Amino acid sequence: MVVGDFAHEREVVVIGGGPGGYHAAIRAAQLGKEVTIIENQKLGGVCLNESCVPSKLFANAAGKLDEARDMESFGIKGYEKVSFDINGLQERKNKVVHSLTQGVEALLKKNNIEKVQGTAFFISDTELGVENQDAFEKYKFEQVIIATGASFSAPENIPDNDDRILFGSSLYAMDETPEHLALYGSDYITLEAAAIFASFGSEITIILDQEKDSFSFDKTINKELLRLLKKRKIKVYKKTKMTDVTALKDGVHVTLISSNGELTIEASHLFVSSDKSANTSGLRLESCGVEVSANGFIPITNTTQTNKSHVYAVGDTTTSGSLAVEAIKQGKVAGEQAAGENSEWDPGLCPVVAHTVKPIAVVGLTEEEALQEGYNIRVSQFPLASNGYAALSNEKEGIVKVVSEKDTDVILGYHAIGCGSIEMISSAVQVLEMGGRIEDVIYPYYPHPSINEAWLEAAEGLLGKAVHG
Amino acid sequence: MVVGDFAHEREVVVIGGGPGGYHAAIRAAQLGKEVTIIENQKLGGVCLNESCVPSKLFANAAGKLDEARDMESFGIKGYEKVSFDINGLQERKNKVVHSLTQGVEALLKKNNIEKVQGTAFFISDTELGVENQDAFEKYKFEQVIIATGASFSAPENIPDNDDRILFGSSLYAMDETPEHLALYGSDYITLEAAAIFASFGSEITIILDQEKDSFSFDKTINKELLRLLKKRKIKVYKKTKMTDVTALKDGVHVTLISSNGELTIEASHLFVSSDKSANTSGLRLESCGVEVSANGFIPITNTTQTNKSHVYAVGDTTTSGSLAVEAIKQGKVAGEQAAGENSEWDPGLCPVVAHTVKPIAVVGLTEEEALQEGYNIRVSQFPLASNGYAALSNEKEGIVKVVSEKDTDVILGYHAIGCGSIEMISSAVQVLEMGGRIEDVIYPYYPHPSINEAWLEAAEGLLGKAVHG
Repeated sequence: MVVGDFAHEREVVVIGGGPGGYHAAIRAAQLGKEVTIIENQKLGGVCLNESCVPSKLFANAAGKLDEARDMESFGIKGYEKVSFDINGLQERKNKVVHSLTQGVEALLKKNNIEKVQGTAFFISDTELGVENQDAFEKYKFEQVIIATGASFSAPENIPDNDDRILFGSSLYAMDETPEHLALYGSDYITLEAAAIFASFGSEITIILDQEKDSFSFDKTINKELLRLLKKRKIKVYKKTKMTDVTALKDGVHVTLISSNGELTIEASHLFVSSDKSANTSGLRLESCGVEVSANGFIPITNTTQTNKSHVYAVGDTTTSGSLAVEAIKQGKVAGEQAAGENSEWDPGLCPVVAHTVKPIAVVGLTEEEALQEGYNIRVSQFPLASNGYAALSNEKEGIVKVVSEKDTDVILGYHAIGCGSIEMISSAVQVLEMGGRIEDVIYPYYPHPSINEAWLEAAEGLLGKAVHG
Repeated sequence: MVVGDFAHEREVVVIGGGPGGYHAAIRAAQLGKEVTIIENQKLGGVCLNESCVPSKLFANAAGKLDEARDMESFGIKGYEKVSFDINGLQERKNKVVHSLTQGVEALLKKNNIEKVQGTAFFISDTELGVENQDAFEKYKFEQVIIATGASFSAPENIPDNDDRILFGSSLYAMDETPEHLALYGSDYITLEAAAIFASFGSEITIILDQEKDSFSFDKTINKELLRLLKKRKIKVYKKTKMTDVTALKDGVHVTLISSNGELTIEASHLFVSSDKSANTSGLRLESCGVEVSANGFIPITNTTQTNKSHVYAVGDTTTSGSLAVEAIKQGKVAGEQAAGENSEWDPGLCPVVAHTVKPIAVVGLTEEEALQEGYNIRVSQFPLASNGYAALSNEKEGIVKVVSEKDTDVILGYHAIGCGSIEMISSAVQVLEMGGRIEDVIYPYYPHPSINEAWLEAAEGLLGKAVHG
C-alpha cells in the first residue's frame, strides 16, 4: 500500500454508520453540506444489527408469548397448544435488520450522501486514509465526525472463547433457547435478556454484578421489579461475588461467594454484562491531535467538539454516551454544528428504558438522588392495580412514582414500571424538560380509561389528591 | 309516601355515582367536606358498567386476537387453532366491572363518604328528596353537585324494541358475535365497535351518518383510517342516507339511498349511534331554580356552576361534556369548588381517543381547522412504516401528523393513528397545554428504538429535518 498524493476533497466526513454517524451525516446533508460517510462493516452499526433492534424484537416476541398465556381469560381459547421456535424468530430478526439497513442506505442516497466502504484512519488533522482490502483512498476534509462506537470487552478471568459464554449482543444471535441462562449484571441489557429468555422457557439466574443488593433504579421500582422477577421464578443473587467461571462440555459453572459461603451455579449459558472500550485504537487519533481518555473514549463538549474544533465525536465512542439515544442526539448536534448551526446537547434528562418483565422507563432524579442532592421532596406512587385500564387489560403489575420538590412543586423525577411505561415516558420527559410543576401534570386531560391516568394520579398523590389511591 | 319535616343536614350532596359524581364526591371529601352521594343504580355509572370500561375490555380482547394472528412471524406457532368465545369475554367483563364497582365503593368508604341508594329530586333550592322503593328521606344541603349523566335515545323512525337493533352501550352486552353488524355512525363508538366485532369475526358495514363522506378526524388520519378499514374488509358507505330500517325475523334490513340509487343491506344486527338526552327529567330542577337547555342539558360555567351558585353540574348531564374524561375533570373541579378551592376547567385541549383498527388519539387543531381559523401553518406527517420500533414489532400501520403555526413554531395540533398513540397522547397534550413549540418537541430525548420517535420525527418534519422521513 502506497499513500499517494491525490486526496478527495470533502466538506464533512463521518466515520461510522451507526445511529450516531448516520444521524450526523443526514442532518449535515439536510443543512446543505456535502457529506461522505465511511463504514467498515454494516450500516446501522451494532445498535441496528446486533443490540437495540434485535433485543427489542426479541422482547416483543417475549411479550407476545406472555400475552398468549393470558388470552384464555379474554375468551380466547387454544393457546395451550402454542409453541415457540427461536429459529423462526431469528428469521424475522434477519429480515427486519436487513430491511432497516437497506432503509438507512436509501436515506443516505436520498440525502446525496456518499457512502465509502472501508476502515478509516487519520493521516493528519485534515486528512483521512480509507482502506478497503487492497484499495486505499485519501480524503481531505474540512470537518470530521467520529462515530465509531465501542466494543464490549470480556472481563478478566472470564473465558472469552466459549460460545456458551456471551458478551454484548451475542445474546440475540443464539439459535437455541438456553436451558439455564445465568446473567452476571444489573443493567438494562441483563434485565431485558432475563425477561426474554424466561418467556422463551429458559431457567434464569441473575447474579448482580459488583456485589450489589439490588438494581439501579429508584428503590420503589427496584422493589416492584424484584417482586415481578420472583413471581416469574427468576432467581436473583444479591451481595455475592463471582469467583470463578469454568466452561465445561455440558455447560458453564459459575462459582459465587457470599456471607452464606460458596455456591456453584450449573448453567447452560452465561451472559456477562461488561465494560466497553471505544473503537478508536485503529483511528490513529494522534495524527489528528485528538485527545482521548481511559479506554480510548474521546471527551467532547456540549457542541460535540473534541479538543480540535473541527473534529466532532458522538455516541459511545465518547466519554459522554453509552445509549443509542445519546448517540442520535449528539449525531444531530454534530451534523448541525458541522453545518454552522449553533446547536447543543444536554446530558441531563435522558430517559432510561428497559423492555423487561414489565417495561421500565425512568427520567430525572430518584427519591434517593433527590435527597442526596439536598432537595426537600414529596414522593408519590400509584400502583397500576388501582388503574381501571390496567384492570380491564389484565396489566395490573407495575407502579408509577413521581418525585417533586416540596417548596416549588417542580417535578424532579418520574419512575415507571408496567404496561405503557415506555410510550408514556415522553410525557414525563416533556414535563421535566419544561420545568413543569405538579399543576402542569394535573391540569391536562387524560383519556379515560387509560394507563395514562396512572401518571396523573401519581402526580395528584403528591398533593394527597389521588382519587383511586 | 309522605314528605316529612325531618331532613338530614349535609354539607355537600352529589347526585349520581358515575365518574363525574364519584370524582366530585371524593375530591370534596379529600378537601375536608362531609359528602353524601346518591345513586339509583350502580356505582360507576354507564361508563364503568356499560360503555367505557366494557368497550375498552372488548377492544383489548380484539387487539389480542389480532396479535394472535400475527404471532407466527415471531416464531410462535399453533395460533391457527385459537378460537374466540364471546361468553368467555362477557364473563371477564362481568368480573372486571364488579371488581371496579367494588373499588369505587371502597374508595367512598375510605373517604368517609355516605352512600345513599335511591332516586333524588329537588324539593327546593336547599333540599332534596330521595326515594328508594317505599322509603323516602329528605336531605338539606349546603351545596349540591348534579352528575346524573345522559341516556341515548333512539332516533325517529328506528324501531327501539328489537334486540338486534342496538343503541348506546348495548353493544357490549351481547352474548353472541353478530354475523353481520351494520353500524350507523361516524364517532369513536362506531369505530371501536367496527374494529372489535371485525376481529371477532363479524362482517362489518359502516354507514356514515348525516350523509358524510368521511370520519371527523384530520384528513390525513381519515385517509389512513379508511385504508385500514378497507384492508380489514370493513365496508364504509359514504354520502348515503338511511331511509328505512326494518327488523325481520332473521335480521335487520337497512335501506340506503345515494347518488347511485337505492340499496338494502341485510345485516344480522344494526347499531345506531344516536344523540343523548340529559338524565334530568326526574330531578324536578324547577324546584331548585336550575335552568336547562334543549334535551335537558344543564349549562355550566368553567367553575361547573349552574345559574344557582351553590348548585354544580358535571359531565354529560351538562351542555359541556360528552366524554368521561370531561366528566372526571369537571367532577374534580366541582368537588374543589364545593370545598372552597378556586378551581376551573377548560374545554380546550381534551384528547379524543378511539380504540379502533389501530388506536387513534388526537388533540388540538386539525389542518383544516387551523386553516379555517386563519392560521398560517406548517404540517408534517410521519408514517409508522418509517419507524424502527414499528418495523420490528410489525406495527407499521399508522401515521403521526403535527400542525404548527408558521411564524411562532407553536404546536397547534397532534393527530395519531397507530400502535402506542393513546399512551403517547399525554406527551402531545402536555406540549399543547404548555404552549410548546417545535423546539420543545425536538429537544428532549426519545428512547431508541421506540414508537415515541415517530412523534419526534413528525415534529422534525415541520422543519424539513426528519431523519427517516
